[in-house]
Amino acid sequence: MQQQAHGGNLNWAAALAGCPPGAILDFSASISPLGLPSSVIAAIMSRLDDLRHYPDPNYSELRLALSHFHQVPPEWILPGNGSAELLTLAGRELAQLEATVVMTPAFGDYYRTLAAYKAKILEFPVVLEGRGWEISPVPVYGSVPDLADLRLLTPLSQGYGFLLNNPHNPTGKLFSRRSILPYLEQFALVVVDEAFMDFLPVDEEQSLISLVQDYENLVILRSLTKFYSLPGLRLGYAIAHPDRLSRWQSWRDPWPVNTLAAAAAIAALGDREFQKETWQWLPSARNQLFQGLANFPGLHPFEGSVNFLLVECQESSSGLQKRLLQEHQILIRDCLSFKELGDRFFRVSVRTQSDNQRLLTALELVLR
Amino acid sequence: MQQQAHGGNLNWAAALAGCPPGAILDFSASISPLGLPSSVIAAIMSRLDDLRHYPDPNYSELRLALSHFHQVPPEWILPGNGSAELLTLAGRELAQLEATVVMTPAFGDYYRTLAAYKAKILEFPVVLEGRGWEISPVPVYGSVPDLADLRLLTPLSQGYGFLLNNPHNPTGKLFSRRSILPYLEQFALVVVDEAFMDFLPVDEEQSLISLVQDYENLVILRSLTKFYSLPGLRLGYAIAHPDRLSRWQSWRDPWPVNTLAAAAAIAALGDREFQKETWQWLPSARNQLFQGLANFPGLHPFEGSVNFLLVECQESSSGLQKRLLQEHQILIRDCLSFKELGDRFFRVSVRTQSDNQRLLTALELVLR
Repeated sequence: MQQQAHGGNLNWAAALAGCPPGAILDFSASISPLGLPSSVIAAIMSRLDDLRHYPDPNYSELRLALSHFHQVPPEWILPGNGSAELLTLAGRELAQLEATVVMTPAFGDYYRTLAAYKAKILEFPVVLEGRGWEISPVPVYGSVPDLADLRLLTPLSQGYGFLLNNPHNPTGKLFSRRSILPYLEQFALVVVDEAFMDFLPVDEEQSLISLVQDYENLVILRSLTKFYSLPGLRLGYAIAHPDRLSRWQSWRDPWPVNTLAAAAAIAALGDREFQKETWQWLPSARNQLFQGLANFPGLHPFEGSVNFLLVECQESSSGLQKRLLQEHQILIRDCLSFKELGDRFFRVSVRTQSDNQRLLTALELVLR
Repeated sequence: MQQQAHGGNLNWAAALAGCPPGAILDFSASISPLGLPSSVIAAIMSRLDDLRHYPDPNYSELRLALSHFHQVPPEWILPGNGSAELLTLAGRELAQLEATVVMTPAFGDYYRTLAAYKAKILEFPVVLEGRGWEISPVPVYGSVPDLADLRLLTPLSQGYGFLLNNPHNPTGKLFSRRSILPYLEQFALVVVDEAFMDFLPVDEEQSLISLVQDYENLVILRSLTKFYSLPGLRLGYAIAHPDRLSRWQSWRDPWPVNTLAAAAAIAALGDREFQKETWQWLPSARNQLFQGLANFPGLHPFEGSVNFLLVECQESSSGLQKRLLQEHQILIRDCLSFKELGDRFFRVSVRTQSDNQRLLTALELVLR
């Protein structure tokens, strides 16, 4: 069985660990350990009978719930079959431009979607500056090597797209709203994947949603996957100019979101209690994991803003991954799919304090 | 509220009928009235906890179930988010050809998907011959008016695609496997939408699935929507050459089918009891409805092979639709979205004998 390039492939891990998939302690997928909100389960159960009808092709009820949640008019919102579906539509749009600047290391699916429409990619790395990650002053342009700085792209970038994620995966770096603003003036289209933004409480988040009505070249992608532990349900949405969203709608089938996913999303957005619990759990659990990892001489965890931590390690991370699986049935995320990072980095999600402790204890045994 | 071009838009109907959507007796969507199999509900409930994991991106378990069901190797099968998603991918493929011949009247989404990729469309009508539908000896080519017969296309059609559905919606006509074979020799790509084929019992069906391994230019689209009453769940699949399916896979996001839909599909395919019940219910219920409709002097129902009947009527079908809604809370499907049919045809699904009788009684009152 081949390992998938993303986290959370439990079948592959279980085969290696010699246990059922359910027995794996999964630190590889960046999903909340608080599990599915019970409000979501209840909403799904209450709508089973509605499966006999087509979903409302306008998803009016869901759009209204998202509109209330984000204070954006419903016509600026397009629900999709996971934000991955919307990323694919964004890829088609980006491919019509001269080229797309991608902030790297980047989620592997960015490359897939841009390749699917033969978009030209320019890579723009975040780099290690001292002990943290910064946007590089010297971007690497595969095929345009003589451009020295992204800001110097201005004369060209009228016809360029920019695809970034904030908070950035896998570094965990949060970019300020202010630091992204100049790119909105500079690029023909800016796609910001905010799949992890909801892990930041309201007074800390740096979402561009509040600006979307001021920039018709701005697209924001959001997901309910990570925060509400729903990767199996497939529910994401784009926030962008209504004309753009109508165009996307014409490119895809009429009912991309199933009835249960739409109902679950509405319940999740309304579950303020669950949201508060998550914001209460995360900072201390992340701090516990960070401190524990930092205590190992061979490991260097980076400060992260959301529910995962990137760790630099002195030994092969795929070797470490294998031993943790075989000896402790614990799955961490190697970073081989991020070509800029390779075999000296791994990523772990933040879990409950007791799960985190299990990982730290296992590392103690494996690394000593 | 605007009416949607497909059947089953209950919100629109309920507003017109002045009742809640659940009170509408829906003859417009061609969904089985036997409802969701209880095996499917049980499968969904048993997998709710798995929503916290990503779906298996290979959908190995589901492909294996489909492989057993159809006796085709798993790598020839690609599950999708409803057959509508796969139709969109087929549209991208068809758009790379010279033009696509579409059998008309055609499902509106065929035009949407071909337009989405700017495919050139040539229309090839089924026409009324006496009292039934036949493939026209003289196809209508919007922009190629001098081509007299589809079979005469041979020199050109090497670079042409052909998109048809069998059984044909909305006429209900079933084309024999043999009658489609010549097109496989003639066209660069033949896409057969078999969304309703499963309503025919094994000894009557005319699926091309058994031939797919002999023709690498053949794509078959199937759906679990109609037979198992699952339009809200979104589950379809394509059967075609593995190279083609790999290409399609690279064009879309990695997890188009959610965990619950995949589990439901496996349960549905294994529910032989439900399949038998459906095949037992349909012929007599269809016959009852056909005979009842044929008794009205102003109505002419066409023999149909599956779970709906097309009816020609002497008065405006949209007027009839409106009166049935307002006076009887019954929704039939007007055929305005099929431009070849217009306001003199409507389509009704076959329901239970008592539901069918309710429609016939209402027609009695409205038409007298």
